[in-house]
Amino acid sequence: MKAIVLRELGGPNQLRYEDVEVPTPKANEVLVRLKYAALNRRDMFITYGMYPGMKLPSILGTDGSGEVAAVGGQVSDIRVGSAVVINPALNWGDNRAYHGPDQRLVGMPTDGTYAEYIVVPAENVFTKPDYLSWEEAAALPVAGVTAFRALMYRGNLKKGENVLIPGIGSGVALVALQIAVAHGANVFVTSSSDEKLEKAKQLGAKGGVNYRSDQWVKELKKLMGGADLIIDGVGGENFNHMISIANPAGRIVNFGATSGPIKDLILPRVFFKHLDIKGSTMGSPEDFREMLQFFEEHQIPPYIDKCYPLEAATEAQIYMEKGENFGKITLEIE
Amino acid sequence: MKAIVLRELGGPNQLRYEDVEVPTPKANEVLVRLKYAALNRRDMFITYGMYPGMKLPSILGTDGSGEVAAVGGQVSDIRVGSAVVINPALNWGDNRAYHGPDQRLVGMPTDGTYAEYIVVPAENVFTKPDYLSWEEAAALPVAGVTAFRALMYRGNLKKGENVLIPGIGSGVALVALQIAVAHGANVFVTSSSDEKLEKAKQLGAKGGVNYRSDQWVKELKKLMGGADLIIDGVGGENFNHMISIANPAGRIVNFGATSGPIKDLILPRVFFKHLDIKGSTMGSPEDFREMLQFFEEHQIPPYIDKCYPLEAATEAQIYMEKGENFGKITLEIE
Repeated sequence: MKAIVLRELGGPNQLRYEDVEVPTPKANEVLVRLKYAALNRRDMFITYGMYPGMKLPSILGTDGSGEVAAVGGQVSDIRVGSAVVINPALNWGDNRAYHGPDQRLVGMPTDGTYAEYIVVPAENVFTKPDYLSWEEAAALPVAGVTAFRALMYRGNLKKGENVLIPGIGSGVALVALQIAVAHGANVFVTSSSDEKLEKAKQLGAKGGVNYRSDQWVKELKKLMGGADLIIDGVGGENFNHMISIANPAGRIVNFGATSGPIKDLILPRVFFKHLDIKGSTMGSPEDFREMLQFFEEHQIPPYIDKCYPLEAATEAQIYMEKGENFGKITLEIE
Repeated sequence: MKAIVLRELGGPNQLRYEDVEVPTPKANEVLVRLKYAALNRRDMFITYGMYPGMKLPSILGTDGSGEVAAVGGQVSDIRVGSAVVINPALNWGDNRAYHGPDQRLVGMPTDGTYAEYIVVPAENVFTKPDYLSWEEAAALPVAGVTAFRALMYRGNLKKGENVLIPGIGSGVALVALQIAVAHGANVFVTSSSDEKLEKAKQLGAKGGVNYRSDQWVKELKKLMGGADLIIDGVGGENFNHMISIANPAGRIVNFGATSGPIKDLILPRVFFKHLDIKGSTMGSPEDFREMLQFFEEHQIPPYIDKCYPLEAATEAQIYMEKGENFGKITLEIE
């Protein structure tokens, strides 16, 4: 089969389009013939070796959709030919609150979805919602479960609350916007691009500010008052602004740190306001199931920016690194 | 009446023992004749002007016990002569999750307990638990409600959990130790003093490490495994160690920052572990009531280090600044 393999570190140019053996499912595993994959920021970090638990060579790709091609051993309720999306978190463990030490993700260290076929445990394939195209279904898993867990399980979002999502445009931020709007929240966003702010409003954001503006924190407070819940994947210097914008007893759920560590976190600003800062990453099997149900119930279409053929994974990742996309970048496999 | 008044900033030597007018209670207020006051770190910060909302002159002192001497207007259920402790948080507001913008504390900006008399709203006096001496009752309010809220309301402590309390010896840390032990937790502590570690064990700590040791983080992990709940009043560089010692899905409740801001908080360590960092300060009227009930139910004696007469408030605060105390420092008033 064809697959995109990372053998050496050094960025997206190290991704190789190669012939590799089709894997064979063992007991309680299934072989999926992939239709589409989608890109995530972790794929970028991995090409530079900036991800915990590096293992090379690896087939990259954490998001994928396809048809079950074969079933290993006796798996009761999965038929060959079923349309599925893949929950990429293997071995989450038995506690919804955190993943156990044996969790591993599809797409490094386990071989991923930038390939014609993938083997995953049977419990990791979920029926593709009918309303989604193959491409849309592939765009959903990582961003969907990360955003859903951050907002609903960790953030305990309630209808009518004020939600702030900084850095709109990334996969998780955008899906978080869609979920929060569908759940009846008042969502505000930030971006360095007026065009992205405009698109976010079309997707239901009540407003947004451009953080290139000098007075953006002031503008944002004027616009939204304060934030009951902030879904932050940015970190860095910006995080102290998030603390300032949070309402008393507000929650800041953090799932990423594209701007690096927080320099000088001033604790009195956190404790005098009784704030919660909560870390969250990916999600449990329950989060994944509930996320799919939520999307099906609200018929939310994942927002796709651009599609490349599988063999153009390098170009696709270079495009992702520019950060100009609004929505997911996908790879068409067949 | 005699009172300790801060008229100018500059540390404990600025505290003046003066004659001031006995205040008069208005409607829904009571006049309390104080028996004992107790010291808190905020009294130290205030003498240097390092506290939000500075107002001079002020009578300091946030903790106190005494007898109701007069009642302003019609207050149904409080009799002159009642033995009371004072809840020093005035105007918390109507939401348990956070205090409103009008909250103010006794002992700057409102005149405090380093005095023969104090006027407070009737809703801020609570019946002194019988089992406590006047001195013990005065030692309880600030540390008790701060520790109780941090552990129980914010920290959601469950029986059998592993709790870490760094910097044992301070008022809040010590009361937190007592509450957590009474609630059936396995409590571990840190200190720079082996003597304090030994005393903490006598109060029920399962173990502790001296953080002057090079390998203290390693030692602590070996000793306790990991922490389900950390009650931290330290902040600073130490906070990253707290993140490292926390179990997955652990909670770190922070109520103070005696070591200053956190330099370089590495967010992936927070989100890959699904940690909660929760700010907490003082407590709501419900927290105060539940704290008193808890202490009465478990008959916990507040731990007192040393007592000074009221006129020696300067010496008492200088002693507090040294940080060598284990337990509360009190002022005897009559």
